Amino acid sequence: MHICRTVEEIRAFVRLVRARGQTAGLVPTMGYFHQGHLSLMRRAGEVCDAVVVSIFVNPLQFGPQEDFERYPRDFERDAALAEEAGVDAVFVPPALVMYPPGFATHVEVGRLTGCLCGASRPGHFRGVATVVNKLFNIVQPDRAFFGQKDAQQVLVIRRMAADLNLPLEIEAVPTVREADGLAMSSRNVYLDPEQRRAAPVLYQSLQEAEKLVQAGERNAARLRGAVLEKITGAPGAQVDYVEIRSLPDLEPLTELRGPALLALAVRFGATRLIDNTVLNGGVSDL
Amino acid sequence: MHICRTVEEIRAFVRLVRARGQTAGLVPTMGYFHQGHLSLMRRAGEVCDAVVVSIFVNPLQFGPQEDFERYPRDFERDAALAEEAGVDAVFVPPALVMYPPGFATHVEVGRLTGCLCGASRPGHFRGVATVVNKLFNIVQPDRAFFGQKDAQQVLVIRRMAADLNLPLEIEAVPTVREADGLAMSSRNVYLDPEQRRAAPVLYQSLQEAEKLVQAGERNAARLRGAVLEKITGAPGAQVDYVEIRSLPDLEPLTELRGPALLALAVRFGATRLIDNTVLNGGVSDL
Repeated sequence: MHICRTVEEIRAFVRLVRARGQTAGLVPTMGYFHQGHLSLMRRAGEVCDAVVVSIFVNPLQFGPQEDFERYPRDFERDAALAEEAGVDAVFVPPALVMYPPGFATHVEVGRLTGCLCGASRPGHFRGVATVVNKLFNIVQPDRAFFGQKDAQQVLVIRRMAADLNLPLEIEAVPTVREADGLAMSSRNVYLDPEQRRAAPVLYQSLQEAEKLVQAGERNAARLRGAVLEKITGAPGAQVDYVEIRSLPDLEPLTELRGPALLALAVRFGATRLIDNTVLNGGVSDL
Repeated sequence: MHICRTVEEIRAFVRLVRARGQTAGLVPTMGYFHQGHLSLMRRAGEVCDAVVVSIFVNPLQFGPQEDFERYPRDFERDAALAEEAGVDAVFVPPALVMYPPGFATHVEVGRLTGCLCGASRPGHFRGVATVVNKLFNIVQPDRAFFGQKDAQQVLVIRRMAADLNLPLEIEAVPTVREADGLAMSSRNVYLDPEQRRAAPVLYQSLQEAEKLVQAGERNAARLRGAVLEKITGAPGAQVDYVEIRSLPDLEPLTELRGPALLALAVRFGATRLIDNTVLNGGVSDL
């Protein structure tokens, strides 16, 4: 497995892939791998000849009060896991390679970014769109893979790729969960034992809504109400948002017609967790 | 010469160029060609195997009170001139191809865009950066060519290309002038005969400053003063800005040390003309 720290190194790797007439897949990550990341890498390996994983804790997508400094990092472990998952090259640039002095350009995706996590984390998606745009231009993959857990991120990046005519496909890969339903996240390590015991309520609340939809419920307010009731019953859970919005434009909905995104963000102490499901549809509708 | 109206058509053309192991140059334009455009095309032909010219009057870079509607257009004439200049493919997308419904993404280049034309035309460089980013992603050229007349545009696009890791080179090509020194511009057709007679004062004022620099003057205020005095002596000239700024960061300067940009924008009636020169250096310093 190649470990590349500069733009020139990773481009040289991808050039060789292309020269063999092969395709390259990119899995952009912030590292500290869990089964969710590994599932993205394995999926990339299924549909692309060569798999590149980027590891970069992107300062641009963290707010000033957020957890950039304490975000968990473990490169040695990540490299070993990536190699095991069949990754061909890891791109792990220093911050100065990504944001050299004088850096002044940002990519803004409008509309989609004013709600859900975009409302709670101003500037977050600007940071995401900018770094992902850079990674796409650096690696020039045929296809890039993102987890459904960050559903809004998938929609924002798809919108950016379409609007800026980026020559690649964006694939959303299903969320991987712990045995008790908690969505895998690098931030789960922040949870204390009590919070960890309470956190599966998020997935349970999503399942509750799915059941109601299967039973014929189409009213967004009632579905949202059921989710809220479930979550607020859990010890220490503080709701940031619970919303049902249209796909792919994230417009507010009162009634479910086609597939819709039920997304939530909930704090347990200082730790903010997100999860979502596509009601009345599946991951392929994301 | 190929005439392509869709992303797929122009990409198919460039794919063929690449398959032959050849390089592609892009000259992004808004059409209504003059000798300045043709010189960009000829320069592209000197250094690239295949030359693509895009023609798109980009609504995003015009302010609400500006001349988008009346901006001159003549596709038949442009196509004939491009063919004569050795262009291999013209990309002339309808507005709906560039900005389909739901379009929501913009590229913002900070700092460089708050001064000079960026101060007079809010949103202009956001529109330029966005459309040029799209054109780069659509055509994927090895090299793109821009006129020195739009010096700030060159610097903004270079900054964008570096910051977003776009895999191409940006080349600035010297301004082409009428016999009396007026910089070629599609907007020169707006000038009435009296304004046209007065307009060469812009170039004369730049030459005046160059002469002063050759004679040893390094004080930016005195150089600017000489330019202003020259221009305000011309009938009907209304100065928008005359400024001397550092290269490539466009910081205000009090004293010339290295090469510096002397840039100006002047209105004759409703017509706004721009021009510039690199003091104490040459085009290669842009």
